[in-house]
Amino acid sequence: MTSELVFVGLGLSGADGMTVKALEALRGCDRIYAEFYTSTLLGASVSDLEGAVGKKIEVVFRRQVEEDEAIIDAAASMRVGFVTAGDTMLATTHVDLRIQAAERGIPVRIIHGVSVFGACPSSLGLQPYKFGRTVTLPFLEEGYQPKSPYDNILENRRRGLHTMVLLDIRADEARYMTAHQAIEWLIEGERKWGEGLITGETLICVASKVGSPEERTVAGYPQDLLEADLGSPLQTLVIPGTLHFMEAYALAEFSGAPKEIISEED
Amino acid sequence: MTSELVFVGLGLSGADGMTVKALEALRGCDRIYAEFYTSTLLGASVSDLEGAVGKKIEVVFRRQVEEDEAIIDAAASMRVGFVTAGDTMLATTHVDLRIQAAERGIPVRIIHGVSVFGACPSSLGLQPYKFGRTVTLPFLEEGYQPKSPYDNILENRRRGLHTMVLLDIRADEARYMTAHQAIEWLIEGERKWGEGLITGETLICVASKVGSPEERTVAGYPQDLLEADLGSPLQTLVIPGTLHFMEAYALAEFSGAPKEIISEED
Repeated sequence: MTSELVFVGLGLSGADGMTVKALEALRGCDRIYAEFYTSTLLGASVSDLEGAVGKKIEVVFRRQVEEDEAIIDAAASMRVGFVTAGDTMLATTHVDLRIQAAERGIPVRIIHGVSVFGACPSSLGLQPYKFGRTVTLPFLEEGYQPKSPYDNILENRRRGLHTMVLLDIRADEARYMTAHQAIEWLIEGERKWGEGLITGETLICVASKVGSPEERTVAGYPQDLLEADLGSPLQTLVIPGTLHFMEAYALAEFSGAPKEIISEED
Repeated sequence: MTSELVFVGLGLSGADGMTVKALEALRGCDRIYAEFYTSTLLGASVSDLEGAVGKKIEVVFRRQVEEDEAIIDAAASMRVGFVTAGDTMLATTHVDLRIQAAERGIPVRIIHGVSVFGACPSSLGLQPYKFGRTVTLPFLEEGYQPKSPYDNILENRRRGLHTMVLLDIRADEARYMTAHQAIEWLIEGERKWGEGLITGETLICVASKVGSPEERTVAGYPQDLLEADLGSPLQTLVIPGTLHFMEAYALAEFSGAPKEIISEED
């Protein structure tokens, strides 16, 4: 009797955004579960995926993954695929599932997908090793705004490092923070805490729908960005630290950053 | 007349490690160039790739990419694929090529691949947003050892952040730093600078051949790792910062870290 749990990262966009290896592995699965609450696949519906793989895919919700044992129970007696957008194992809940499988003696296979952590720097032409810790901006709920994202971006920048800023996703409510909301979040933070993170001349980069055919990158100053069309979610911001000449040049050439950023740098 | 330069990240391993989208794009190219000097594809030869794509692939060296205009000239009159291991655009030389294409009015397409920046945290079960800046350990040439990698790892850890440690690659000489050499590098640094980065109980994680069927992860204390079989290059180290319970548990369960790291953490 086959028993296996195959974790598959689907990549960022489309049914063709997964690797050839992933597609072949899923075609060999007896049952496939998908969770899209920690991340969202662009430009492909579940039935698009089902068409590409040639199998039915059952979408599961947070409670089913975290409280049910259905996935693990199934994997004990057949080959089960567990797919997510981006890469797999980037959310705690996947690691937890992997641990449960190990405890039940179920073999596990991990097939990586393209994730925003690699693709976003690449799309903007920014060097990946110069990123400090990543921050996430949460929706302002009843006006509460945590200070830690503001502090962490500032601390990265003081060290010359870029910050990738992930925007809140509430997939179950179909709410996705927009780049405009995120920039307003940062400006509001500046008004509250006033430590100089955001000025009129702070360069902000926006990457929309990274990895999809609609991918779009824009870089500029806060007020200009607020008045510009920045595309639509999923979006990621990057607040750059010290820019290498080639990085500045790439931002000016491909994302419309003001040319003056080039001469300012090394 | 078609004119296009298609940058393709091949992913980490095998001819099936690229996305379905990448494979289709390469099949539509008139000519394909590959550079493997900034990164190396595991488990697939050039002829394996040629077999999968059904086209001839010309491997180019650093000088040809950086000084020649052959690739750009070709892309001016046909559809040219430029492939690299991991993701594309992660090396300055790719960005430079993209800029040259833009200056010549040649349309560019970017097709992302799985990179070690996303896959390594995933394989170890470490949260990707908790990584600080990445460091690279260079081979010791005539005994010269730069201090900045040591400083940067220490700084990350003081902030509670993990550090991904890339090991030197000299693809043209077929020299790849091993995990053992990297651990010795760090111990030697500790002997020189003595700021407490490496003690007998510093946890070090090693990820070998990430993304390939031979992937292997090991975590432990320096002396134990030096005596252990850690697999073979390509290898990446991670020096963890503060571990979340689930991260510690994953390292103990899947990478053989001492169980005592679990109770020490939150």
